[in-house]
Amino acid sequence: MGAEPNGQPRAVAVVGTGEIGRSWIRVFARAGYETRAWDPEPEQLASAWEWMKAELKRARKEQGLRKRVVRSEREHVVRCATLQEAVDGVIWVQESGPEVLEQRRPIFAQLDKLTPPKAVLASSTSMLDMTAIAKGLSGANRCVIAHPVNPPHIIPAVEVVGGHRTDPLVLRRAVRFLERLGLTPVLLRGYVTGLLLHRMEAALVREALHLVKEGFASPEAVDAVMRDGLGLRWALMGPFAVGNTSTDGGIREFFRRYRPVFERVCADLCGDLTLTPEVVDQLAKSVDGTWRRVSRAQQRAWRDDMVGRIRHLKEAHPVKPPDPDD
Amino acid sequence: MGAEPNGQPRAVAVVGTGEIGRSWIRVFARAGYETRAWDPEPEQLASAWEWMKAELKRARKEQGLRKRVVRSEREHVVRCATLQEAVDGVIWVQESGPEVLEQRRPIFAQLDKLTPPKAVLASSTSMLDMTAIAKGLSGANRCVIAHPVNPPHIIPAVEVVGGHRTDPLVLRRAVRFLERLGLTPVLLRGYVTGLLLHRMEAALVREALHLVKEGFASPEAVDAVMRDGLGLRWALMGPFAVGNTSTDGGIREFFRRYRPVFERVCADLCGDLTLTPEVVDQLAKSVDGTWRRVSRAQQRAWRDDMVGRIRHLKEAHPVKPPDPDD
Repeated sequence: MGAEPNGQPRAVAVVGTGEIGRSWIRVFARAGYETRAWDPEPEQLASAWEWMKAELKRARKEQGLRKRVVRSEREHVVRCATLQEAVDGVIWVQESGPEVLEQRRPIFAQLDKLTPPKAVLASSTSMLDMTAIAKGLSGANRCVIAHPVNPPHIIPAVEVVGGHRTDPLVLRRAVRFLERLGLTPVLLRGYVTGLLLHRMEAALVREALHLVKEGFASPEAVDAVMRDGLGLRWALMGPFAVGNTSTDGGIREFFRRYRPVFERVCADLCGDLTLTPEVVDQLAKSVDGTWRRVSRAQQRAWRDDMVGRIRHLKEAHPVKPPDPDD
Repeated sequence: MGAEPNGQPRAVAVVGTGEIGRSWIRVFARAGYETRAWDPEPEQLASAWEWMKAELKRARKEQGLRKRVVRSEREHVVRCATLQEAVDGVIWVQESGPEVLEQRRPIFAQLDKLTPPKAVLASSTSMLDMTAIAKGLSGANRCVIAHPVNPPHIIPAVEVVGGHRTDPLVLRRAVRFLERLGLTPVLLRGYVTGLLLHRMEAALVREALHLVKEGFASPEAVDAVMRDGLGLRWALMGPFAVGNTSTDGGIREFFRRYRPVFERVCADLCGDLTLTPEVVDQLAKSVDGTWRRVSRAQQRAWRDDMVGRIRHLKEAHPVKPPDPDD
């Protein structure tokens, strides 16, 4: 077993092993942490374990992942029968339960009692405020949101935000810890419903649904504009950095020049969408038509594999000149 | 000089050689069309030509573009002194002027008179409706919008939409022609202010600006969530295809499961943003801070180069199994 930089033992707990939780298991195990997995439903944990074995087998076969690496990742996972066993001596708990305050509060109350006082208690929630989850807990200072993009073992961004009583030092520790896992922590200044990611996504998807619903374009047209247009730049730069490179004068000139256009478009955007069954039906038919010869599992595997390739490309060709001090 | 599949000569005209027009010159010239470039301001055309030579030199040096390819692209460009000369015998005109109806209407009236009757008259506009631009023209049936993403020689998506009098056959010809140029034409069913791309972008950017303005996150946090989160998937799949791969039951299950979350987030989104000088100032400082060791020209060159690499990656690893008939 390895050790944290300060010599502490490196054990973490994953509490809740659904779609998000099981991906977190891979993140921690891959980084060399003893990863204790627990779920209130034992069948869920068993299914997470089967998923992980199948994923590793596939990675070994299709991506040439080395046997030693696969074995190491598996050996770092400990399936636990009780929450107590899972959190004993851990430095970090990653909770990934349902988005229901009444379910998350008692879990955090238990975690606060059972874990070492210095452990960070992190929730994968994006729809609940840590101020509410940790209300009344003596350890509210060590409770944080660490909301990943699904799935975190593929996509690096993790949104980090505390509740009103979270210690700023704990937030900084959380950011450093997530960085050591190979993730990209993004620190928010305060909780807002859905955090950044779901809000920006919902704003765009609402408009996309509106365009389909009003008959301006097919769902496939929307997807094509994204994957062969907007998305090619956004995989490299966020929207502000794109604006900054779009004129010689940078983002100030960008907004000076395009503000009238931006405001005209904004004034015309959908502000209130009713999602009808007909539109969802149209989406399903269009998407299934476009991808008709590839199963959904294959689509997902391709997506995850290609995200890995794009990340590799970005690491191999950084924009910044190498630091002379490195 | 090459020929169209039906044996017609292959000459096209680029009318207006600003930032978008000059990129179109490269698209056509690269594809082997005799590309006649004209601008009402001769200095603009001269500057476009200097830009193109510098770009080709850079591509030759940094991307190892072959001398023969560079020479061929240059030799396919003809700088014209008059509009008449530019459009003589062409099969396609790509107009890229200012987004002002009163300037575009007279240009289209001239084009309708000077061009061969079968030539397609395309505008790069996203903010004007072709119904209005081509109003009263006898050739309104052959007028289309072909709105590229900036710059079209790098990003393949092109939005295609007609006016009320545009012939559906012309739209189909336009789509096929753009495909032959190596672009990804996306056909819309009707004009809507800003088309798909600017609307989806504006919806997301408005929310991003709101989050910065209200103090929830820094501009850099917004950009990081995009480039290390949302954007990694969107470079591969549009938002509907992503939803489709996010649950085992596809997009129907996706909206069944996440609809309450989606609606809660939508209800909280910014609907009315006032862009203050303070926010633009904050954006500029943040973006310049993040990229402080790299000039804007270098950022843009890196972005364009990396988009090319991602496109190459997608071509080399298609999701669909190879067609047995191919």
